Amino acid sequence: MAGSELTNIKSPRVKAVRRLTKRAFRDRDRSFLAEGPQAVREALALDGVVVELFATAEAGTRHADIVAAATAAGVPVHRASGEVMAELAQTVTPQGLLAVCRFVHVALDRAVTADARLVAVLAHVRDPGNAGTVLRTADAAGADAVVFTDASVDPYNGKCVRASAGSLFHLPVTTGAPVAQAVRRLKDSGLRVLAADGAGERTLDDVDLSGPTAWVFGNEAWGLPEEILRLTDEVVRVPIYGRAESLNLATAAAVCLYASARSQRAGSRTPAPRLP
Amino acid sequence: MAGSELTNIKSPRVKAVRRLTKRAFRDRDRSFLAEGPQAVREALALDGVVVELFATAEAGTRHADIVAAATAAGVPVHRASGEVMAELAQTVTPQGLLAVCRFVHVALDRAVTADARLVAVLAHVRDPGNAGTVLRTADAAGADAVVFTDASVDPYNGKCVRASAGSLFHLPVTTGAPVAQAVRRLKDSGLRVLAADGAGERTLDDVDLSGPTAWVFGNEAWGLPEEILRLTDEVVRVPIYGRAESLNLATAAAVCLYASARSQRAGSRTPAPRLP
Repeated sequence: MAGSELTNIKSPRVKAVRRLTKRAFRDRDRSFLAEGPQAVREALALDGVVVELFATAEAGTRHADIVAAATAAGVPVHRASGEVMAELAQTVTPQGLLAVCRFVHVALDRAVTADARLVAVLAHVRDPGNAGTVLRTADAAGADAVVFTDASVDPYNGKCVRASAGSLFHLPVTTGAPVAQAVRRLKDSGLRVLAADGAGERTLDDVDLSGPTAWVFGNEAWGLPEEILRLTDEVVRVPIYGRAESLNLATAAAVCLYASARSQRAGSRTPAPRLP
Repeated sequence: MAGSELTNIKSPRVKAVRRLTKRAFRDRDRSFLAEGPQAVREALALDGVVVELFATAEAGTRHADIVAAATAAGVPVHRASGEVMAELAQTVTPQGLLAVCRFVHVALDRAVTADARLVAVLAHVRDPGNAGTVLRTADAAGADAVVFTDASVDPYNGKCVRASAGSLFHLPVTTGAPVAQAVRRLKDSGLRVLAADGAGERTLDDVDLSGPTAWVFGNEAWGLPEEILRLTDEVVRVPIYGRAESLNLATAAAVCLYASARSQRAGSRTPAPRLP
């Protein structure tokens, strides 16, 4: 590891890193924080993403492979005291590893291409934990990209990064485009754009999902506004068979994305039969 | 509303209610707290569940229908100051309504009957938010019951009640049975018992889900232990098409429960074709 252990939580270096918990500083430095062995390992798998790594003595020993990978990649590794790590990390029980990473998102046109078969769009998702969970689920469902529009939470928010469980580093993510621009690009790329919303006339089970599809997910509390619903090709709802009023946003997204993944892989061109 | 406004957070009455945030006191009184208009409305829809209702002046005005329903049902309604409500409620922004409710769970044999077609079993779920989300999703998917085993979180934990978004009051919930006893009851009732676990050889897409099915969900971090996997009829995994290592527990449960709901309603007896 480089230099001596960082022990002073008030040192300029610690403060500079700590600032990245705030969006304004992330945007200025085009950098963010990834915590814990899983996220750090995934970040190191991408060339040039990790700028520097902080590790407690204990974590450095336990995850010697990660420290070795960082060193091999020419990434400076700093030893940090437990107190400094607690100051830098945003979790109650930091796992002793924290990386400063360069932004990994790409431009909309690079994230969404004519090859795309499944894309998730977070149109008004405000809760970073939900956003990260949708990102993780989209990755699991084999999505080609995830679009964070300008009205959604910052994908580099610490809670989002943690909830994504490394998926932020797995598939193309784009952020900051207005929803209308994102929908246009998706349509131009040959995807059918479906809004997931309780206002839909047809349910997931009634729609042919075998073709290239983009799902647009709205706000946790109020769904999607009328002007966004109008932009899409169809509004589709997740069927509610019981008495729940609605589904949690991340849950609804999982049901939609996996229904698409399944239909696309089954190669079926006909919707499931509709039964009462 | 009965009596004068409660303003003293140290009064015995306020303290007695506040104690219900702790499991030992809930178990002793066989009572729990339901917060917010949605949960209180659902609780009032069940006979004899709400013991007493607390409302701030503002919430009492905004939700006059709920206060009227409580009064009509003979439920004492107490006006509480904002400070008292903040003391009683477990949310940062309490919505001004809080009900003391009697336990609503039923015995295992009453929750799981020969009529059941879809049951969710929380075998080792420790996070109350996840448990409540699974309960809400099971309700949405039309499940007949939700089983909390003795190794899972208390369904009356405040976070679980909130995450269930009223679903705790919608379908039969049972709690406290050892997992082996629950699985035996499910099998005796004619359900096929599937463990949702990454160790499964077959995926969701390869299994016939059209018959009566119980899904067993494990721990957020380590899944299901071998001795529980052995009790079940089959271990089934959610397919991971992308690069995510796994899914969040509540997300995986949503995919499983909705796959079952869809298969059962489509009436298909053949599994989806398996493609590479």
